[in-house]
Amino acid sequence: MSAEDAAALIPHGATIGMSGFTGSGYPKAVPVALAARAEAEHAQGRPFRVRVLTGASTGPELDGALARADGIEFRLPYNSDPILRERINRGEMDYVDMHLSQVAPMVWEGLYGELDFAVVEISGITPGGQLIPSSSVGNNKTWLDRADKIILEVNRWQSESLEGMHDIYYGTRLPPHRVPIPLIAPDQRIGEPHFHVDHSKVVAIIETDAADRNAPFSKPDGSAQAIAEHILEFLAHEVKKGRLPKALLPLQSGVGNVPNAVMAGLINAPFEPMTAFTEVIQDGMLDMIDAGKLRMASATAFSLSPERAHDLNARADHYRTKLILRPQEISNHPELVRRLGVIAMNGLIEADIYGNVNSTHVMGSRIQNGIGGSGDFARNAFMSIFMTPSTAKGGKISAIVPMAAHVDHISQDVQVIVTEQGLADLRGLAPRKRAELIIRNCAHPAYRPMLEDYFARSISGSWGKHAPHLLTEALSWHQRFIETGSMLEAQIEAAARA
Amino acid sequence: MSAEDAAALIPHGATIGMSGFTGSGYPKAVPVALAARAEAEHAQGRPFRVRVLTGASTGPELDGALARADGIEFRLPYNSDPILRERINRGEMDYVDMHLSQVAPMVWEGLYGELDFAVVEISGITPGGQLIPSSSVGNNKTWLDRADKIILEVNRWQSESLEGMHDIYYGTRLPPHRVPIPLIAPDQRIGEPHFHVDHSKVVAIIETDAADRNAPFSKPDGSAQAIAEHILEFLAHEVKKGRLPKALLPLQSGVGNVPNAVMAGLINAPFEPMTAFTEVIQDGMLDMIDAGKLRMASATAFSLSPERAHDLNARADHYRTKLILRPQEISNHPELVRRLGVIAMNGLIEADIYGNVNSTHVMGSRIQNGIGGSGDFARNAFMSIFMTPSTAKGGKISAIVPMAAHVDHISQDVQVIVTEQGLADLRGLAPRKRAELIIRNCAHPAYRPMLEDYFARSISGSWGKHAPHLLTEALSWHQRFIETGSMLEAQIEAAARA
Ligand SMILES: CC(C)(COP(=O)(O)OP(=O)(O)OC[C@H]1O[C@@H](n2cnc3c(N)ncnc32)[C@H](O)[C@@H]1OP(=O)(O)O)[C@@H](O)C(=O)NCCC(=O)NCCS
Ligand SMILES: CC(C)(COP(=O)(O)OP(=O)(O)OC[C@H]1O[C@@H](n2cnc3c(N)ncnc32)[C@H](O)[C@@H]1OP(=O)(O)O)[C@@H](O)C(=O)NCCC(=O)NCCS
Repeated sequence: MSAEDAAALIPHGATIGMSGFTGSGYPKAVPVALAARAEAEHAQGRPFRVRVLTGASTGPELDGALARADGIEFRLPYNSDPILRERINRGEMDYVDMHLSQVAPMVWEGLYGELDFAVVEISGITPGGQLIPSSSVGNNKTWLDRADKIILEVNRWQSESLEGMHDIYYGTRLPPHRVPIPLIAPDQRIGEPHFHVDHSKVVAIIETDAADRNAPFSKPDGSAQAIAEHILEFLAHEVKKGRLPKALLPLQSGVGNVPNAVMAGLINAPFEPMTAFTEVIQDGMLDMIDAGKLRMASATAFSLSPERAHDLNARADHYRTKLILRPQEISNHPELVRRLGVIAMNGLIEADIYGNVNSTHVMGSRIQNGIGGSGDFARNAFMSIFMTPSTAKGGKISAIVPMAAHVDHISQDVQVIVTEQGLADLRGLAPRKRAELIIRNCAHPAYRPMLEDYFARSISGSWGKHAPHLLTEALSWHQRFIETGSMLEAQIEAAARA
Repeated sequence: MSAEDAAALIPHGATIGMSGFTGSGYPKAVPVALAARAEAEHAQGRPFRVRVLTGASTGPELDGALARADGIEFRLPYNSDPILRERINRGEMDYVDMHLSQVAPMVWEGLYGELDFAVVEISGITPGGQLIPSSSVGNNKTWLDRADKIILEVNRWQSESLEGMHDIYYGTRLPPHRVPIPLIAPDQRIGEPHFHVDHSKVVAIIETDAADRNAPFSKPDGSAQAIAEHILEFLAHEVKKGRLPKALLPLQSGVGNVPNAVMAGLINAPFEPMTAFTEVIQDGMLDMIDAGKLRMASATAFSLSPERAHDLNARADHYRTKLILRPQEISNHPELVRRLGVIAMNGLIEADIYGNVNSTHVMGSRIQNGIGGSGDFARNAFMSIFMTPSTAKGGKISAIVPMAAHVDHISQDVQVIVTEQGLADLRGLAPRKRAELIIRNCAHPAYRPMLEDYFARSISGSWGKHAPHLLTEALSWHQRFIETGSMLEAQIEAAARA
């Protein structure tokens, strides 16, 4: 069947579970055809918008195409597409930004209504009729189990050798029928290599041959390298103190250039072969495996550069025993994150002086991506590290602010903050001590005096002194940025220019 | 040994793990003697302050006495004592407000340094030398295991019949040695009835005969009753929809009059016998057991009125098979909260229009109590309900505000908000839809037009429109309260007076 014919089966208003996680394993043909359909319907003056649920972010052929066509009414649980982001921030559609581990159970609870369609990319079908997953697992098991009708995209571009890397756990239930998840090490397999599917629900099978949205990583810049060095020094110190084993504990690493640089740094670190229990496998982890520094990595998706994707396909036998892809409900499960004692490393938009972290809402109102899995990991991690350059937008924005304009990670879930300036180990510290350390170690020198001034005046002028704040000024840096394009005070900005 | 002699063993600067959770099972003699010692030392011009770790809140003989004597330098993880609260909010001491499930593992990690002393109330010692816990378990297992020296208070006031109600799990480890916690139902026992203790570490045993800080509950007022009714109607609706079993799922209920009123309401509700997997057992739960509506309750502590405490002691055989007290690491464990599918019901200070909840920081800077176990439950609950009267301080404060001045529970962890005005079911809703519902259903009529006005102007004037905010006004209600004693705008306040 053609993608157009398949898209024609989907009516306006349908709720669709689509595959895709961090730009890998998303359907590449049907969403484009659906977007064309939406445009044609709109041209006729008819409404056409669907509700789209995925694993996490996808690619331009899915979120980009459908958003450009104004074809999405409701989207969850994560997005990083710029066109879709713009629509969300213009208030033109609904976006629910969710803990990634909770999507599958909440869909089973029925909180998002019936799932009319599943549109899932796979890399093949076994002779017995089971489905071979592709480069991400995400929520595909749930979409296949719950949807009324199923559309499959078999993508020939995906390597055949992916087969056997997946571990699909079929033991999840709704309460009161839940039992312990029997996983006690990241390299343990607890499931099956394939998806079950009820073939009577399959209404279309499309063949595609298109690459994932793999983007090259930029070479770590000075800032990313400095952040990586601070983290490595800290981890080495913890090992020396006996608070971490010599092989560390399973690593979780957010997506982006900074986490990739940390992985690059770990190649030279004096730790015994490590493991990863994370969401996404990036280039850096494959490099670590090649260097014998990483024993194995468990995740729910790949996010590789084109070269590394090619390499993975070419040397799949080498990697197959060292990589496991699981449903995101398992890769991010709080039970497992806590049990394994994961070391979580995630990015942030801004942190305030008390260590509350905003990962999502720029200036408190504009969504960047979404909380993603960061909450699944940060709350239950053995150690929760957040990292960021100390400024954004060429220095016009400080990543350390008096008060975060939105909070995703409360200070209890933020144990370490790192910028290129330094690292603040906040464990066991009360609010005012946290503030001193964050301002001293993490803030950029251009903003440090402004933060010191705010904090000092808060200590004398705040209504309560447990976590002092001046409410008339707490969000004034953000407002100044909105009004002037810079968080710097006018005289400082002038001095900086002079 | 006398309490004074025992207190004399403790030096200035010591780190002490003390028993006590929600006013029950805390040591009643040694802390008072320690406070006297601090006062005597201070009178001599010598410093004397200790670091105090507990289960949760204690009683006037512990936090009250030591705070009055300025004898506490550092306190975690929870407090509700007014004298101590005042010291914290004057900035005179350090207070670390923590997720209650994380205290024990973090102490094992060594994040709070060596534990010099454990001061633990017990209800007896077995012939074999094991310790019979008292009316709370809290972190006592950890204090006994980790402390260098142990001081025991054997409290004769505690009923002998408590013996057998406790379930002390000895299977926790630090990673990488953690295994699944083998609990799949609230009534399952996975541990032992007594604490192990290394008698060579016991430096003092004191006998006491003093009641817990049991306070009578006020009769549910109209507001609490209305909140309870909204919740019961909602739960009944969920059962009807097939999203909850007829016996519901295990209940968690915060401490206070409103949660107690909800329990009172459940006595007449048409549900099959329920269970509780919670932190604290209050009067309402015993009433439900007596009425045959609650099969059993699992918790870490009692918090009873004097009559009910007496009753429990008198009829311990009746209750012993229906009540289980566990370490707080287990009663609040995210793994178990998620597995069992707990229905969490907690109080709040304020919620903002998007459903972010502040449970701790009044006007953003003054600590009320602490996050307690609310984060352990809310993030992993099957359903997370937050409840509050719609106003505080006689109407001068709205519990629904434009932006929360502090965030403890991010909107992802807040599924339902209830006030006496009504209930907002936020599940599956994007931010602007959440705002409409919260303002319409939960806000007090005196504040509703102000909130509607803020929200409408935010939609047109906000920088981003995903979760619209006007940063110059977002915290202005709090500032107005600080300056004028009321969040109401002057003209409304005047009209209200007229
Ligand atoms: C927070 C987050 C956006 C940072 O992303 P990153 O790629 O590491 O960092 P960058 O510095 O490249 O920032 C990304 C963008 O946010 C912008 N940004 C970062 N900090 C900012 C701030 N304080 N104010 C405004 N914009 C900011 C950057 O300028 C950049 O914008 P651009 O793409 O227009 O240039 C990203 O980590 C994220 O989405 N986190 C939440 C989800 C998550 O943690 N997932 C992994 C968990 S498993
Ligand atoms: C949030 C919390 C303080 C509400 O307590 P409560 O007893 O249910 O409710 P009350 O309405 O009696 O409020 C308690 C106090 O806070 C004050 N308060 C409540 N809302 C307020 C607000 N928005 N602004 C200022 N003060 C407020 C009340 O006036 C009252 O003060 P008072 O003692 O000086 O009269 C309480 O639930 C709490 O500490 N929660 C966090 C910990 C927790 O959830 N534990 C249970 C989890 S297992």
